Amino acid sequence: MSELANELENVSANKCFGGWHKQYRHFSRTLGCTMRFAVYLPPQAMVGENVPVLYWLSGLTCTDENFMQKAGAQRMAAELGLAIVAPDTSPRGDEVPDDPAQAYDLGLGAGFYVNASEAPWSRHYQMYDYVVKELPELIEAHFPVSDRRAISGHSMGGHGALTIALRNPERYRSVSAFSPISHPVDCPWGQKAFRAYLGDDQALWREYDASLLMADTRATLPALVDQGMDDAFLERELKPETLEAAARASGYPLTLRRHEGYDHSYYFIASFIGDHLQFHSRQLAQ
Amino acid sequence: MSELANELENVSANKCFGGWHKQYRHFSRTLGCTMRFAVYLPPQAMVGENVPVLYWLSGLTCTDENFMQKAGAQRMAAELGLAIVAPDTSPRGDEVPDDPAQAYDLGLGAGFYVNASEAPWSRHYQMYDYVVKELPELIEAHFPVSDRRAISGHSMGGHGALTIALRNPERYRSVSAFSPISHPVDCPWGQKAFRAYLGDDQALWREYDASLLMADTRATLPALVDQGMDDAFLERELKPETLEAAARASGYPLTLRRHEGYDHSYYFIASFIGDHLQFHSRQLAQ
Repeated sequence: MSELANELENVSANKCFGGWHKQYRHFSRTLGCTMRFAVYLPPQAMVGENVPVLYWLSGLTCTDENFMQKAGAQRMAAELGLAIVAPDTSPRGDEVPDDPAQAYDLGLGAGFYVNASEAPWSRHYQMYDYVVKELPELIEAHFPVSDRRAISGHSMGGHGALTIALRNPERYRSVSAFSPISHPVDCPWGQKAFRAYLGDDQALWREYDASLLMADTRATLPALVDQGMDDAFLERELKPETLEAAARASGYPLTLRRHEGYDHSYYFIASFIGDHLQFHSRQLAQ
Repeated sequence: MSELANELENVSANKCFGGWHKQYRHFSRTLGCTMRFAVYLPPQAMVGENVPVLYWLSGLTCTDENFMQKAGAQRMAAELGLAIVAPDTSPRGDEVPDDPAQAYDLGLGAGFYVNASEAPWSRHYQMYDYVVKELPELIEAHFPVSDRRAISGHSMGGHGALTIALRNPERYRSVSAFSPISHPVDCPWGQKAFRAYLGDDQALWREYDASLLMADTRATLPALVDQGMDDAFLERELKPETLEAAARASGYPLTLRRHEGYDHSYYFIASFIGDHLQFHSRQLAQ
């Protein structure tokens, strides 16, 4: 692992369900700043097996830590022999611009998994390329994993997972999401972020809209989406019905589950993350 | 539930594994301040069953939230039909004195589950009585639970769980702990807290020392203790070997498990909390 030291700095390690939760720092060429990510390596990876990887994209305000601390995913990941990689939700550091108003839904903690084209964002806010290319390259070069990948996420990260999978179906075996921002071109969170990062060209916005992509795609990557019906953001921001209609239009293999009483929190994610890991594991085994 | 409003104020509710995680505020007569606690009610409690209760005592700096967010206990609690109640770790509020140096290991967030006898602590720092008496009375009056109780905790809370169970074996069916402060009269954390809260009378200190109590007891409440062997506090603060020796001396039914590679974090707790809930559930069913 000595070549690791040149590129990856290990900043924490906790044994968990017989495997290891670890955090690393590295300089990202794509983002032009130092980034931290977390990886869970299941016990199988500690004994020489190249395990498949689930990439988890978090929601607004999160870092690599929220999912690893709150989702309770490690138990099932250890059972299934699945690594999980959780990146941060935006570029970070003093040199990275933030929203002047410091709103939680733009700038730091709110990268929206797009490649920004507009000033002052375009220099660092390239989260799409970071997640699609640089991060998997780094992970596959330095950890005992295979190139079998799945992708999932929550809210802004659910939008990220769906759009990245729909645009790169050859790179993933499956995709899932909790409470995704399903139609960002038509909701306040999405419109605010896209206008800032992508400017006014709506053709560019369409490339980052899960419902528009799904309505139009020939991809057949299996997709599982869970949505809580007491989610405070359901009608205004999330709009799962547009994703459902898009899947119907293109015949896309989407399973959308609605859960009575559940909200937008990690208590919801924890309740169903086991189902998601099993879903991905079945696809990754094929 | 209308009489609830007089005593308990519900401040949050999240559906989780078919049950509910809820936070409440109430005025504690014992502590002379407003306290918040969290309760997890499993699905069985929502359909009229009076379920048993596990009381969870957290460690230094924690509130009611750490365990509920990070331990991943709700999955197994839902499966077993077990409620979990997590109090705060000290009295709270502007009127409650804190350590003048604001150290993390004294004052707010560090009540050590004792009844303080010394000024300025004695007015509010009565966490022993709060956990033993007031909190269970409140819980059993207002929630669909039985009077079958178990108790567990982590670090300072492991000390709390063990000492409370050993002094009140008739009130609990079982006790467990993660990384408990096993012999506080002989470690820096314990000595600092006991000197402040209890003064210099070492006879009083002995009433709050799990190893001394266990060496001397005729109680036979089953006890399960898990300890990580890469825990940074192991030798200086935790000293599980003193608890083990005490159990040998009195023939106490202690199961102490040492786990290679695990640390003091919630990643350790999450890895073995399922075992603890199953252990308690077996005792509670008898």
